[in-house]
Amino acid sequence: MTTRPPRIDNLQYCNVSPKTFEQIRAGGLDAVHVTIAYHESFREMVLRLEEWNRHFERHPDLIFKGTTAEDVTRAQESGRTAVFFGFQNPSPIEDDIGLIEICHQLGVRFMQLTYNNQSLLATGCYEEEDTGLTRFGKQAVAEMNRVGLVVDMSHSAERSTLEAIDHSARPIAITHANPDWWHPARRNKSDAVLKALTARGGMLGFSLYPHHLAGGTGCTLESFCQMVAEAADRYGAENLGIGTDLCQDQPDSVVEWMRVGRWSKVIDYGEGSADNAGFPPMPGWFTDNRDWDNLDAGLRATGLSDAEVDGIMGGNWLRFYAENFGPLTGDAA
Amino acid sequence: MTTRPPRIDNLQYCNVSPKTFEQIRAGGLDAVHVTIAYHESFREMVLRLEEWNRHFERHPDLIFKGTTAEDVTRAQESGRTAVFFGFQNPSPIEDDIGLIEICHQLGVRFMQLTYNNQSLLATGCYEEEDTGLTRFGKQAVAEMNRVGLVVDMSHSAERSTLEAIDHSARPIAITHANPDWWHPARRNKSDAVLKALTARGGMLGFSLYPHHLAGGTGCTLESFCQMVAEAADRYGAENLGIGTDLCQDQPDSVVEWMRVGRWSKVIDYGEGSADNAGFPPMPGWFTDNRDWDNLDAGLRATGLSDAEVDGIMGGNWLRFYAENFGPLTGDAA
Repeated sequence: MTTRPPRIDNLQYCNVSPKTFEQIRAGGLDAVHVTIAYHESFREMVLRLEEWNRHFERHPDLIFKGTTAEDVTRAQESGRTAVFFGFQNPSPIEDDIGLIEICHQLGVRFMQLTYNNQSLLATGCYEEEDTGLTRFGKQAVAEMNRVGLVVDMSHSAERSTLEAIDHSARPIAITHANPDWWHPARRNKSDAVLKALTARGGMLGFSLYPHHLAGGTGCTLESFCQMVAEAADRYGAENLGIGTDLCQDQPDSVVEWMRVGRWSKVIDYGEGSADNAGFPPMPGWFTDNRDWDNLDAGLRATGLSDAEVDGIMGGNWLRFYAENFGPLTGDAA
Repeated sequence: MTTRPPRIDNLQYCNVSPKTFEQIRAGGLDAVHVTIAYHESFREMVLRLEEWNRHFERHPDLIFKGTTAEDVTRAQESGRTAVFFGFQNPSPIEDDIGLIEICHQLGVRFMQLTYNNQSLLATGCYEEEDTGLTRFGKQAVAEMNRVGLVVDMSHSAERSTLEAIDHSARPIAITHANPDWWHPARRNKSDAVLKALTARGGMLGFSLYPHHLAGGTGCTLESFCQMVAEAADRYGAENLGIGTDLCQDQPDSVVEWMRVGRWSKVIDYGEGSADNAGFPPMPGWFTDNRDWDNLDAGLRATGLSDAEVDGIMGGNWLRFYAENFGPLTGDAA
């Protein structure tokens, strides 16, 4: 039906509204993976799902709930955007392995094993000690593999990430981060992690969150795209995609919720600082979802082939969705 | 693929085990609607879903989760039983209309608006006053219609049931009860209710719970089947099916949970009494799921046509599933 390559953003957390849905369409996004939970319990997370159900009911001309790779094709054919769900933290599964399948049945397709801090499953990138996967963590990864809930280690610490890659029977993802050889932020990833991730078929989604960018808000499109081209050389273009981490229209109270949830009475600034506590401004060449053509053009200007750019802009995530969102079959085990 | 007519029990609450699953297969059941909740909150109900997920994982050769009419056909073709979920009370949706779609997404396909008592939605058959559908009840029925969650009024009072039939844009069900002209139990239904129900395409599932039977445990197969034949004359055989209410292997603590949940510190005996407080013995011609052939033969002996009996044994429920488990389309509104 369609010959246009798919365009996918594999991580956003916008304060969504008719405006952002229209911008997503204007940017030509066929699919977007949105964050459903940071610190929510299972029951609280369900309230977030209910809000999304209401969005789908009100805006069926723009968006619908995506759960399979076929939904991306359906989105392309109907001129809409398929919205996929993910958790940035395992808080919604609480201490209950059975909730992994329940969450998958509710349409969740990505779950981070940890968000900055130690979780019941693994260690986050802000802890001083990284003890790797916990007993529950190993069981949870196997169950996630079984049902088709993708392990995401974007906010996890090094050893935990390497152990998750190794322990998982299926490829995992780092949905939104950049290589630390380009910008040494605590959230960016080592060459060792990215090599191990991609050697097992895992995917890296490049982040456009300013704290993850060399030069921050002032990062140039050229610098970003050269970094992507270098990553394609090192890790293979087929293992790369985009996960912008776009947090459009969120109040600063939301970045506080992300950073401290209910675990601290003292503010923690994460990648920010006391004098730069809120969401930093996005770079001028990617201020919102209407700017996807800039990114596409910037990548093509690097010398990456059209097929490589098509893959990075969405084709690679689509292949990953097709292979990893369903139950584990005998072949994949 | 298969020419055998479908066999469906549209209400059971057995204490399931490999034994009961094997008996369900021995009885030739292609589908069974099982109760997930009586008084459970949403979060507690999810624990019951987790238990079923574990059953499906452990016994994929016998059972799988059913959510569509096609699953019944799939069950027939693979020699297994599709298990459909329902609530006997709206407690799992709490006071939150958004939980209706969430529960449907989790696979729930039937929900009673009330279980014996007044609920947030309607009045149960044991209350002294029946005030009909509440404000929330009317909104909930419309939302259930929209998503494809069937209204079940088995334990509801007369006026509430008539109002639900009238208010619902789609046919509703009384999954497990008998006509009160055959046996005047409080749970059995008036001719007026059954006429209104079936005139709108609704379904009645005949119960084999002894308190609903003329003569109780001593009820004969002939008496039961003659009652079904009479109901076919009055209401049309195409609107009739079976909902045995089989509660095999349950301890008496479970009938107490059904009857008083957490709402009373004093025991309530429901259809039973102080000297007959537990589950009464089933009639000898239907002690468990291996006895479906007895029922089939008994119905054929009444003079009902083979097509009518095939419909009552499962074909009518299958048609009802096909028409009522999906989202409301413009046509059906």
